[in-house]
This record gives sequence, C-alpha cells and structure tokens, in this order.
Amino acid sequence: MTVSFADRLTAAVREKRTAAVVGIDPVLERLPAELRPRGNDLESAAGALEAFCRAVIDAVYPHVPAVKINSGFFEAFYEAGVGVFYRSIAYAHERGLLVIGDVKRGDIGSTAKLYARGHLGAPAFADVDPARIPDAVTLAGYLGENAIRPFVEIAREQGRGLYVLVRPSDPGADRIHEFGGGEKLYQHLAGLVRAWGEAPELRGECGLSCVGAVVAPKDAASTAALRESLPHTPFLVPGFGAQGGTVESCRPCFLPDGSGTVVNASRSVIYAYQAAGQEGGDWRTCISRACRQFAGEIAPLARL
Amino acid sequence: MTVSFADRLTAAVREKRTAAVVGIDPVLERLPAELRPRGNDLESAAGALEAFCRAVIDAVYPHVPAVKINSGFFEAFYEAGVGVFYRSIAYAHERGLLVIGDVKRGDIGSTAKLYARGHLGAPAFADVDPARIPDAVTLAGYLGENAIRPFVEIAREQGRGLYVLVRPSDPGADRIHEFGGGEKLYQHLAGLVRAWGEAPELRGECGLSCVGAVVAPKDAASTAALRESLPHTPFLVPGFGAQGGTVESCRPCFLPDGSGTVVNASRSVIYAYQAAGQEGGDWRTCISRACRQFAGEIAPLARL
Repeated sequence: MTVSFADRLTAAVREKRTAAVVGIDPVLERLPAELRPRGNDLESAAGALEAFCRAVIDAVYPHVPAVKINSGFFEAFYEAGVGVFYRSIAYAHERGLLVIGDVKRGDIGSTAKLYARGHLGAPAFADVDPARIPDAVTLAGYLGENAIRPFVEIAREQGRGLYVLVRPSDPGADRIHEFGGGEKLYQHLAGLVRAWGEAPELRGECGLSCVGAVVAPKDAASTAALRESLPHTPFLVPGFGAQGGTVESCRPCFLPDGSGTVVNASRSVIYAYQAAGQEGGDWRTCISRACRQFAGEIAPLARL
Repeated sequence: MTVSFADRLTAAVREKRTAAVVGIDPVLERLPAELRPRGNDLESAAGALEAFCRAVIDAVYPHVPAVKINSGFFEAFYEAGVGVFYRSIAYAHERGLLVIGDVKRGDIGSTAKLYARGHLGAPAFADVDPARIPDAVTLAGYLGENAIRPFVEIAREQGRGLYVLVRPSDPGADRIHEFGGGEKLYQHLAGLVRAWGEAPELRGECGLSCVGAVVAPKDAASTAALRESLPHTPFLVPGFGAQGGTVESCRPCFLPDGSGTVVNASRSVIYAYQAAGQEGGDWRTCISRACRQFAGEIAPLARL
C-alpha cells in the first residue's frame, strides 16, 4: 500500500526529532574556494554546483528529515543545471532524506498536466531513475483548480505531496496577498487550498492532506487564524534565518499536537562558512554545525 | 544601440503583416505517426520532440512574426527536454522568428534573480549559444515587484521583454483573478504591471514598454477597459482557437492604431493534421496551411 507523503514526513520528523528542513539554493559566487570552477564554461560550473549540493546533503542528512531543493538556482545553468537538480534529488534520497522540489510551477490545465508529469509523477520512461522525483513540490495556485488537480491526482496515487503558495515570505508579495476588502487574497487562497485538499482519500493516517500550503509567519494572530482555518493542511514555512523568521513567529504554524509543519532555512545553513570566515577552510563542518544548531532551535516546536 | 523588444516585435508584425503567434506545445501522444518514438526511453522521446519542433518551425516561419514555446511541455522530459527547449529557441531564431519563452516563472527576489539569469539574460558562460535565449518570457507576478525586477533590468539592458499574467484564459483562474470587492484582482495586477513598466527608459520608439501583460479576452467591455488602463503595455493574448478566443473577442486588446498586441494559437495550428485526419499523411502541409489561415484571420486586427 502507498504511504501518504504526510505520513512519511511525520515519521521522518519523529525520527530526526525536528521539523527543520534545509533549503539548497546554490549560487556559484558563494561556493567555497576549493569548489569554484576555474573556467568560464557551463560544464565546469555545473560540476561545481553538483559537488556543492552533494557536500551539503552529506553535511545535513544526519540532522534533518528533509531538504528543499530550489529549481531556480539550477535553471540558471540551463539543461546542465536541471540535470544537477534531478541528480541532487536522487542523491538526497540515497541519503534517506525526503525531498521537496521547490519549483513553484503554475499554469493552465493542459500545461499543468505536463508540469505534473515532469515534476511529481513517476517517470514514464524505462531509463529514468525514479529516485530523481521529489516527494513533494511547491506550486503557484493562482491559475486555479485546473492548475493544481493533475498534481493532486499524482500525489494521491503515488504518496506524494504539494505545497501551494498562500502567504509568501517576501514583503513585496504582500501587495498582492493582502489585496482585498474584508477577506484578503491570502485568506481566499487558503480557502481554495483547503477545498482542494479536503477529500478524505487525500489524507494520511496522521489526518493531514497531501495538499499543503506555503505559509510565511507574519504577526502571531493572523498566523494562528490561518492555521485554525486549515486544520488538515501541512504547512511549509519559508524564511527562517536569512529572511527573518524566528522560533516564536513559527510557533502558531504548528498544530496543537506539534505536528503539521516543517520550517525551512536555506542561506543561514548552506553558507554558514561565509559567516564564519571559513570560505577557504573547513566549510563542511561549518554547514554541519549550522544545520545541527538550526535543527535544535526548531526541535521544541514539533513535539511528536 | 540595443533595439527594444517592443520595437523588434512591432517591426516583425509589420513585415509578416499579422500579429499571429504560434504556440509550440508538443505532446508525445499527438505527434505524427512517422515521428513517434519506437522505444520507451527518454532519448528517443526527446529526439522525437525535437524533430517535431523543428518541423513546426519550418512550417510556420514564413507566415508569422514569432513563436511561443511552452516550457512545461519540455520539462516533462527532464533535462533532455529542457535541452530541446533551448535548441528549439535557437532554431526558431535561425529561421528569423522572435521567440517568447512561455515559462510563467515567479519567485521571491533572491530566486527571481537566478530565474532571470537562466531564462532571459545573455548567457554568462563562454560556451553557451546566445541564440538559445528567448526574446521575451511569460511570468507570474503574484510575488510582487521583487519577483519581476530582475527580469525588467535584463529586458531594458538587452532589448528583451516580459509578459506578466494579468488575466489568464482558463476559466478556473477566474476564481482568483475575479476576486475582490470593487476592484478585482486582475485589475489590481494590471495596475502593478503598468507601474512596473511605466518608466520612460523602459519604452521603445513605438511607445510600448518592455513589461507586457498576458490578457485573455473575456467580455468586450472589460477587455476594452483593461486596454484603456494599460496604454503602453504590450498584450500577449492566449487562447485563440482551441481555448475559444475569436477575432471579435481579441479586437479590443489592440490599440487604436492596430499595434500593441499579439495573439497566440497553439493546438489548432500544430496539431492541424489530426483535425484533418492526416496523422500518417502530409502533416507538414496541414500545419503550414493552418498557420497561414490563422495568420490571415488575425491580419486585419494589426493594421500597421
């Protein structure tokens, strides 16, 4: 029987004793000195990118249940980077991590089907490694139910998940998400996300749906209200650390039993060697230490 | 001196005497019999995809100023498909077409910079063919100005363009775009798009900005109002043909002088051989004929 994504994530959070997720956002200019490519060619750059991703995964896998790999940082390297994206997912799986593909795709129905095939579905080709497919993806739901449904169907059938943007971390996004008279757009989106994930067959044993939400914590009251309106929706919280999220601001995202949410930090962990002035030194240990510290900070939030 | 995208597109519309754009949305199952891959491996599939895209470009380039290539249909084939996406853009350029990369990306500022590099910027690597970069891209603007600005900067510097989703064609998207009390979300988005593209240095000789909008025609009055509120914004109109758009519904998208808009049709052109029962026959001629007919239908709208 297929185990739901929500159940698999809950088990992994329990095993690692933390709801911390490390975001992998690799930028060439910030790589450790020893990895920086010598030449100005795409192959060298993609090679450096891949080496860094593997090292980050090696440094963090003992401490966290999952990684979130951000497609945008790989697409800057065209198809070579996209290859690294998929191989990094496979490598994270090899290390026992769950993987969220941070792709934020959203398009009308006919295109959404194809996006769902490439980003969430089991490969249709005999020679494609199924381990390269992430366990869940982030999506933009602004084009409505038809843009989301193909992903929901795959998620249900294959025990995968999706997180729809409801309240992004970037303050610039507020111009749109706080739009509206009485009800705000983010509240309207939350209602749609709840409806899209409502059917009982979409829920795991833990009670959570395969349709989740990306929710950045703002003031405690509005975050608590959002959580209350979405009792069966897993949350992915972005913006911890570099983007200003704190343990206190994340607290209302969790369900009363301490489940239902994972919290992501990217730059503060994977570039910890820069903050420590160790770009030419023991950068692996810096990442590992920052990850352990982040995992420890988040640990008390998920009392499972 | 760099010529703006709006000026280049206006010149191309004038030269081809039509504002018709062909959308390339290749689906394996719909390919002509002779191109369908024999094996179930990714390489055969990607090869078939590429052969089809080249044939479509060969069939349509004499008749239209531009093609829109939809990334989602290529991402279903992982990095192999993404390679075909970029090589198809380069091939369309070789045939003298302008190319809109239909990628609908949208992410917060730090990620947006990387998306902009990969999808719109001149390549930073010595061994990457600059012809593989599209002249314009479609974007999701829901994450606000920071998600768009990196693209605007590249567009201004490099004579490229972008089209932000304002009113998508899928009726399911209305649940979100018609949200709001007095002002609707699509009107609010239109105001943001106008502001993002307002600066005089973003406009070409023709007066149009590098920041455009994706606008599906609904009722004539609301389309006309949208056009009136966006006098300097190039429109990309999706949904002609298969999605229900007509010449009449598209008319209010054009500026009084007949400029400012291109109209896209995808399936009704590139799969014309299916409607004609020619899947095993002369499918190239069917595509070419459907394209000529579509270009002729749209021609009276752009009186340049």
